[in-house]
Amino acid sequence: MAAPNLETVASLCKRRGFVFQSSEIYGGLNSCWDYGPLGFELRRNIRDEWYRSMVRLRDDVVGLECSILMNPKVWEASGHIQTFTDPLVECKECHHRFREDKIEGTTCPDCGGALTEARNFNLMLKTFLGPVEDEGATVYLRPETAQGMFVNFDNIVTSTRKKVPFGIAQIGKSFRNEITPGNFIFRTREFEQMEMEFFCKPGTDEDWHQHWIAYRHQWYLNLGLTPENTRLRPHAKEELSHYSKGTTDIEYRYFPTAVGENQWGELEGIANRSDYDLRQHQAHSGKSLTYTDPYTNEKYLPYVIEPAVGVDRCLLAFLFDSYHIEPTPKGERTVLKLHPRLAPVKAAILPLARNKPEIVEMAKRLTADLRGDFAVAYDDTGAIGRLYARQDEVGTPYCVTVDHQSLEDQQVTVRDRDTTEQVRIASSEVRQLLADRLRPQ
Amino acid sequence: MAAPNLETVASLCKRRGFVFQSSEIYGGLNSCWDYGPLGFELRRNIRDEWYRSMVRLRDDVVGLECSILMNPKVWEASGHIQTFTDPLVECKECHHRFREDKIEGTTCPDCGGALTEARNFNLMLKTFLGPVEDEGATVYLRPETAQGMFVNFDNIVTSTRKKVPFGIAQIGKSFRNEITPGNFIFRTREFEQMEMEFFCKPGTDEDWHQHWIAYRHQWYLNLGLTPENTRLRPHAKEELSHYSKGTTDIEYRYFPTAVGENQWGELEGIANRSDYDLRQHQAHSGKSLTYTDPYTNEKYLPYVIEPAVGVDRCLLAFLFDSYHIEPTPKGERTVLKLHPRLAPVKAAILPLARNKPEIVEMAKRLTADLRGDFAVAYDDTGAIGRLYARQDEVGTPYCVTVDHQSLEDQQVTVRDRDTTEQVRIASSEVRQLLADRLRPQ
Repeated sequence: MAAPNLETVASLCKRRGFVFQSSEIYGGLNSCWDYGPLGFELRRNIRDEWYRSMVRLRDDVVGLECSILMNPKVWEASGHIQTFTDPLVECKECHHRFREDKIEGTTCPDCGGALTEARNFNLMLKTFLGPVEDEGATVYLRPETAQGMFVNFDNIVTSTRKKVPFGIAQIGKSFRNEITPGNFIFRTREFEQMEMEFFCKPGTDEDWHQHWIAYRHQWYLNLGLTPENTRLRPHAKEELSHYSKGTTDIEYRYFPTAVGENQWGELEGIANRSDYDLRQHQAHSGKSLTYTDPYTNEKYLPYVIEPAVGVDRCLLAFLFDSYHIEPTPKGERTVLKLHPRLAPVKAAILPLARNKPEIVEMAKRLTADLRGDFAVAYDDTGAIGRLYARQDEVGTPYCVTVDHQSLEDQQVTVRDRDTTEQVRIASSEVRQLLADRLRPQ
Repeated sequence: MAAPNLETVASLCKRRGFVFQSSEIYGGLNSCWDYGPLGFELRRNIRDEWYRSMVRLRDDVVGLECSILMNPKVWEASGHIQTFTDPLVECKECHHRFREDKIEGTTCPDCGGALTEARNFNLMLKTFLGPVEDEGATVYLRPETAQGMFVNFDNIVTSTRKKVPFGIAQIGKSFRNEITPGNFIFRTREFEQMEMEFFCKPGTDEDWHQHWIAYRHQWYLNLGLTPENTRLRPHAKEELSHYSKGTTDIEYRYFPTAVGENQWGELEGIANRSDYDLRQHQAHSGKSLTYTDPYTNEKYLPYVIEPAVGVDRCLLAFLFDSYHIEPTPKGERTVLKLHPRLAPVKAAILPLARNKPEIVEMAKRLTADLRGDFAVAYDDTGAIGRLYARQDEVGTPYCVTVDHQSLEDQQVTVRDRDTTEQVRIASSEVRQLLADRLRPQ
């Protein structure tokens, strides 16, 4: 049983339409990726599961969707303009730039030239709004969605009358001009975040921090991530971000080639941001963000607990974790053991004989019948063994086969992806079987 | 019965948490908007309905999700670098810039100074990737999602083995540096598109164009848009985009203040892009994008039909259309008659007496019980008339009231938003009632 590496997973992603290089016909664009039909469905499912767990099922969290472009004063207040930087050195000969902490020796790795002193390089992408390109028109593409929740805190308290403790959740694109992006979709310059800012009373923040660490960890396990491939790692004091009172990462045991020598890599960070952000925005905007408890009349700036994960990194972990090569009687098979709720296609309907019109028709009718409720696929372009193999490789949990006997007894064969066991049930019962297997626990 | 105008709708949006000005505590950012908790849910529902109609229910359309940043050669090939421009004049005194076609007279509207000749100003937002800001690092924020489908055409044919005719659908942010954005969320510089490129054999394109115009128009009607407030308007030859062989807009009768003197404004455009884009990308990339029919071996560049709509504009049309002020016995009420599938909250559970713990407990239990299947809200912060009014104003189709009698007979009162009629049913039947009313037609 071979362990997957980044290349095997990336190769499957390309071949089967999970992930393509962005603008590939033009040679791509460094660290930008497109998600093909199956990746599109998988991302959709990941976002839906996050939304369900973080917003729908909780009466203490609401959603928000902010613009990517925000008033630049937001980034002054948040500290990003001053501190969201990497130290770069520049070669005096070829003018290439490098991260100081990644350079070994004191000369240019490209041409051997002498290097300048390090200068701080801001990681925010900038653009210009309006007809004139000048300093006054400069805006930034947000490097995190979080600030949207802080600057809307008062608007949301007022319009929803939510009481602390409560959270604001957002899913959306962020951009960071990483100097060394790489490892496929692990570190990219454009990525999609799922972040939630949970506002609570100072003094209760430690407890809420623990709650959210456990709650988020459990989310991954509920969706089938192998417990042994996950761990919690509290940040050492010296690696904490400028706003953080304490951060614990949920790490995933990505395979060695994914993140260099360290098998473990960040999957999600859960930070206690204290009242840093609200305090900063209150000071910079001159608008009070102080919360008044409606029962006790106490006034305070809430503390904030933030679970933050990237859709792309999350998808990579689920792909790695579910990728298996297994021996079969005739050789081996590649199978993605994705949780059924994550699987891009829930069931494939396969006619055993495509030259028999009645079988084809029955299979197509069943497909059409299920389509309104489930993502299903119809495939008649191969022998049944080959069709099963194709579906295993993209993680389809159930294959439903229509055969000659089906025309007589209106029964079909349902094959389980993981066990390869088959059961024979009435065609009319397939919908209920899928509904049962896909129901959240 | 007062007709809504842009100000009334925008005011409701702010007050109830549908739409906030972006970065409002810093004075906002011109034409950027944030969507609060109810706007978040409404957008989610609009996207889900589009996805359902355009991808899930069709066996001939697949999804795609591309990066916003693409290789700049894409925009050379597409023609955007050369032709996606507005003619601007600049004042020689104050250096303000204006769209030539919007200027009356020959002097600066701001200071009366003389104006320069018009120069073409590109509407794409640009940024710089990597550590050096120079020409070579310039990339653009996509002005449309469509090009992602064209450059991935071959990847998708290969990985999915889809046969022409088939479509590729995408939902995502696009950016245009509009010189005169405005009218609330009608025209913004950052917006979210829902686009689908349908590839078909040349010669069948006119029929497919008609198919998609009718299919998309019906989508709006199915979701409750008033037929009289919609119309189809074929573009005159001189207003066609450079790539278009023919375009028909689905227009909505936005109210006068929304789009100046013309009550009708674009809601969605359905264009026949011919083989313009594939031909351009084939020429510029040097990669063949020619399709080979697997049955006949015919080779051709497919024609493309494109239905394209913005989530923001779509949301504005649904808000306008559903906004009603109606007389009631005691005065009047504001009610959003949103289609139940679009409504941000499907049902509100209201205890008739909040000082009676058993009633509160029963209402909270029912809320928790429904939460897994439907977006529901619990509210006990007012008298029942006020609670109904609050839910009417945000378009909640059903209010479920728990009263003293409910403790005896386990029955609750379900009030219909539009008719205000009430029915009494078993508490255990609420789930099925909601499921029935929310089932797609």
